[in-house]
Amino acid sequence: MKYPEVFEQLIDSLKKLPGVGGKSAERMAYQILNMRQEDLNLFSKSLLEVKQKLKTCPQCGCMCQDDLCEICKDEGRDTSVICVVQNTKDVYALEKSKAYNGTYHVLGGVISATNGVMIHDLNFNTLIERVKNNEVKELILATNPTAEGNTTALYIVKLLENHQLEVMITRLASGLPVGGNLDYADEFTIINAMQGRRKI
Amino acid sequence: MKYPEVFEQLIDSLKKLPGVGGKSAERMAYQILNMRQEDLNLFSKSLLEVKQKLKTCPQCGCMCQDDLCEICKDEGRDTSVICVVQNTKDVYALEKSKAYNGTYHVLGGVISATNGVMIHDLNFNTLIERVKNNEVKELILATNPTAEGNTTALYIVKLLENHQLEVMITRLASGLPVGGNLDYADEFTIINAMQGRRKI
Repeated sequence: MKYPEVFEQLIDSLKKLPGVGGKSAERMAYQILNMRQEDLNLFSKSLLEVKQKLKTCPQCGCMCQDDLCEICKDEGRDTSVICVVQNTKDVYALEKSKAYNGTYHVLGGVISATNGVMIHDLNFNTLIERVKNNEVKELILATNPTAEGNTTALYIVKLLENHQLEVMITRLASGLPVGGNLDYADEFTIINAMQGRRKI
Repeated sequence: MKYPEVFEQLIDSLKKLPGVGGKSAERMAYQILNMRQEDLNLFSKSLLEVKQKLKTCPQCGCMCQDDLCEICKDEGRDTSVICVVQNTKDVYALEKSKAYNGTYHVLGGVISATNGVMIHDLNFNTLIERVKNNEVKELILATNPTAEGNTTALYIVKLLENHQLEVMITRLASGLPVGGNLDYADEFTIINAMQGRRKI
């Protein structure tokens, strides 16, 4: 016997979430039946709106709901330091550690032949513009310490050389396990990595 | 730094799902940003509609989208046997085993002092009506083999005695581990339990 159509549809949608298989999706769907209608309305609304309401900050590439993201708007931030990260979630991981008061630049990924991410897919042009037009003293390359993250970091070094932009370039160091993922590092690891960054 | 409001709201909603903590909810929310808008529209719609569209079958208490559930509508079903279960999900678990061709009766829970579920909260009256008005030969009590499930089964036996209704009453037996949960039993366990049911 099949579930009623609307229930089956809900299960199918839940199965698209990461780490959710058939059995978990069923459990979630039954739980949803016990949730208050107001909560479901809110949930439904946020699913519908999340992609429409979230924009990309034109300056740093982080996700935001207004014209500029919270960090670019914040006048207390040190705009002479830019921390270059792969994704928005890395910004939040770094912010949680409270070890950094500069600005960010979100690339939107790393150069990866296997995943088909090429140079023109990433946010390099605005980074060069930012370094050109502002008094940037330091660029912290905080792409993940993986082969692809390192390649992307080296590509940025080359890119700045080609544009004859002289700026101190550092790379997050100690603390982050090689092959690991910045998003999952604990706050102390991030603090260590932030303090132990080294010139390349 | 806080997430943008709409994103935070989505995470809060996801955290209400069973087995989803803060970190998983964040991962899911990021994944949702990468989903197609059509998929999100469908997901959102089913969340909004699931409680409104699903009804309770007036005959057996199972969830359904039409006036009667699929099983009560099915003329190929043996209406002289009723299998009494706690919840709708138990109906689907039993149906998956394909070991049974009778009808069902969903109580909506079990008598439980600790959870505050009392006799009048459960679907006993319609069960008595069904046994009175139809030629029911057998009642299979398939509440979970827990203290509360057993109590509820014994209560049904008493109830039928009080109404002087003579019908063979059986209880699902071998196969189901004591203290376990019908919803999580594999199909073979359910087949064993169905075949080894015994008169009480």
